[in-house]
Amino acid sequence: MTEGRVSRRRFLGSAGALAASAAVAPALVATPADASVRAGGEPLATVAFHGTHQAGIVTPAQDRLLMAAFDVTSIDRADVVALLEEWTAAGRRMTQGEMVGRDNSDLDAPPDDTGEALGLSPARLTVTFGFGPTLFERDGTDRFGIHAQRPAALVDLPTFAGDVIDPARSNGDLVVQACADDPQVCFHAIRNLARIGRGTAALRWSQSGFGRTSSTSTSQATPRNLMGFKDGTNNLKLQDAKLVNEHVWVGTNDDPAWMRGGSYMVTRRIRMLLEVWDRSTLNDQEQTIGRLKPRGAPFGSAREFDPVDLDAKDRNGDPIVSSDAHVRLAAPSSNDGAVLLRRGYSFTDGIDPVTNQLDAGLFFVAYQRDPRTHFIPVQQNLAGDALNEYIRHTASGIYAIPPGVSARGWIGETLFS
Amino acid sequence: MTEGRVSRRRFLGSAGALAASAAVAPALVATPADASVRAGGEPLATVAFHGTHQAGIVTPAQDRLLMAAFDVTSIDRADVVALLEEWTAAGRRMTQGEMVGRDNSDLDAPPDDTGEALGLSPARLTVTFGFGPTLFERDGTDRFGIHAQRPAALVDLPTFAGDVIDPARSNGDLVVQACADDPQVCFHAIRNLARIGRGTAALRWSQSGFGRTSSTSTSQATPRNLMGFKDGTNNLKLQDAKLVNEHVWVGTNDDPAWMRGGSYMVTRRIRMLLEVWDRSTLNDQEQTIGRLKPRGAPFGSAREFDPVDLDAKDRNGDPIVSSDAHVRLAAPSSNDGAVLLRRGYSFTDGIDPVTNQLDAGLFFVAYQRDPRTHFIPVQQNLAGDALNEYIRHTASGIYAIPPGVSARGWIGETLFS
Repeated sequence: MTEGRVSRRRFLGSAGALAASAAVAPALVATPADASVRAGGEPLATVAFHGTHQAGIVTPAQDRLLMAAFDVTSIDRADVVALLEEWTAAGRRMTQGEMVGRDNSDLDAPPDDTGEALGLSPARLTVTFGFGPTLFERDGTDRFGIHAQRPAALVDLPTFAGDVIDPARSNGDLVVQACADDPQVCFHAIRNLARIGRGTAALRWSQSGFGRTSSTSTSQATPRNLMGFKDGTNNLKLQDAKLVNEHVWVGTNDDPAWMRGGSYMVTRRIRMLLEVWDRSTLNDQEQTIGRLKPRGAPFGSAREFDPVDLDAKDRNGDPIVSSDAHVRLAAPSSNDGAVLLRRGYSFTDGIDPVTNQLDAGLFFVAYQRDPRTHFIPVQQNLAGDALNEYIRHTASGIYAIPPGVSARGWIGETLFS
Repeated sequence: MTEGRVSRRRFLGSAGALAASAAVAPALVATPADASVRAGGEPLATVAFHGTHQAGIVTPAQDRLLMAAFDVTSIDRADVVALLEEWTAAGRRMTQGEMVGRDNSDLDAPPDDTGEALGLSPARLTVTFGFGPTLFERDGTDRFGIHAQRPAALVDLPTFAGDVIDPARSNGDLVVQACADDPQVCFHAIRNLARIGRGTAALRWSQSGFGRTSSTSTSQATPRNLMGFKDGTNNLKLQDAKLVNEHVWVGTNDDPAWMRGGSYMVTRRIRMLLEVWDRSTLNDQEQTIGRLKPRGAPFGSAREFDPVDLDAKDRNGDPIVSSDAHVRLAAPSSNDGAVLLRRGYSFTDGIDPVTNQLDAGLFFVAYQRDPRTHFIPVQQNLAGDALNEYIRHTASGIYAIPPGVSARGWIGETLFS
């Protein structure tokens, strides 16, 4: 067997032969995705991993999502720290188009990297890590000695009107949001992080998103959601620097100190009852949303980005935007000025076995400085939303998103160090 | 209400005003997706809908898949015919970037098209229709008077070694394969066809595929599957005209006559046991597949497309490609020359609740002239495949794919007329 192996190794070419002669493979061998893109002369589509804030929040929304939550199966704080250090190292490499680990050529060992992203562009991959409430406390137990560090803003979400939440698809101790313009790159990221986690953390749920439903940059066109409407026209954009500082990032004077530069993420799996929606008239659909379907313009306007005039009345003195229209109830002016950075994706997860309809909708993702002043009151205000006739919230999550890291740092160091 | 509606309609602009004044909206209004792409100056990414064969078979494999199967709920043959006529009309329009139907501006009616593909490129959309065995006969009943037309080649698939088939995700009376380079375009197609089918056919299952795992054209690079290996290097390509005629299309002398120019599709949802695979050494992985992982080259070669020499021996006289390697058992030379046109996609469908592992793998799709000489014996030959340790077939389907249609034809007319 040994001879056969050597004779095969020879045919990998000089790079492979080189790798075979060294315990640590040189960078050229360890980073073929990187190298192959460079060889093609195209620029690497990479997003910086390091910074004050984690990437994947104000990063212009990539086309695809794979999000996964994990439960820690170890009872040892040191295991959690080691996992976060390993995840950080892997995230640092994968987002730059490099393979996970250093050993991908040893025939007698499992490769460190599973290989399915070899030769693909990094596709602007971001991996964004977060901590659920149960990491700080579960059933009254301070599992990892961090209960006192739990942010007051990391509340357990209340039950909202109409919730039909599946606990198996909700919450979790740890969460990873992988976004990229190529779904295989997202899959590779989550799969390799899950693999690294084995023995310490087990997958709890995952959710694919096939198309972004929000823009987070003025450079992006507003996409349509599965109701056929442009969604998130007035979403917070990274160019709104003042608003982003005010509404997204935990401030330099906010507590706890370890969260400064971080944010809070709320996820909601929102099933759309498409068969009901599709039977509604165009007028009903537009009245429900509060915008015109063809271009996403406000009533009375021709252009999408014209301001919505919530006070406008028709000639009978009735409001043009209905009192229960989604745009009215979700507007910052209806919510004490609260603005969310939305970063959601459309999903389709097969067939609902009860109704034989597509199980599809919007996987809502929002970032904010404090869910107590942002998502929670906004969602409570939406209790009277006309849209509720057509949607069901089927899963839910809230997570503290710690700040970004430097080149030598690791995600969670401000909490665990 | 009427006044309010008119005042809003005014702001749709001249096209909207025009539509409001005509019972049948002009093409300009009905085809904004088309128009917007043209306005941008980019060529329309469309695949011809008409032809001797249906599109989506030898069409260079698009990046994304959404496949759906339906069961006919009506007992009336005329309903099936009407559905196929409507589906054909919708497929014809959607693949050319046009909205479904003619009425998408009437405020007092549900729009014919659900709208989520408005403004998107057609993204090389193809919709490919097929008929399952149960359309011809179910529980001994000739439901639609076509039992005598059932092709002998449309057998019920036997049970294969290691099958763990979920019937709820298998088979079905009708099937639609939607492929495009944009998953939202795939979703729009299946969702609108499902909507058209309401009252006649109910969704049975659907399957998303996020990345193609085969090339069907020499212009395409070979992709990697979720095992990290290049898959389908020796797949049949549309450029292999003679082999395609011999192995894919039902021939001009084959029976039944209504299937001439058609094909047979076999689908297999193949779950990969990634956690087991990921613990295997590189040597085990390469021996299992029978190729080298880095470049997909055969053992003893440096280039992917070098021929695999199944007779080669090492210096000890042992075969270099193991007797149970996947490439050996799947090779045409091991299967009386049978060649399949594979058109599979990678999938990820959340978490297996029993193992807490990713439910992911390969949704295998293959086209052939006769499953009795192609998929079935090949799959039986794979009973001894080393790969079986790492995979489970969890769903299955077989369908007659009727020939293509002309500009006035409808899918299934050769069967039902």
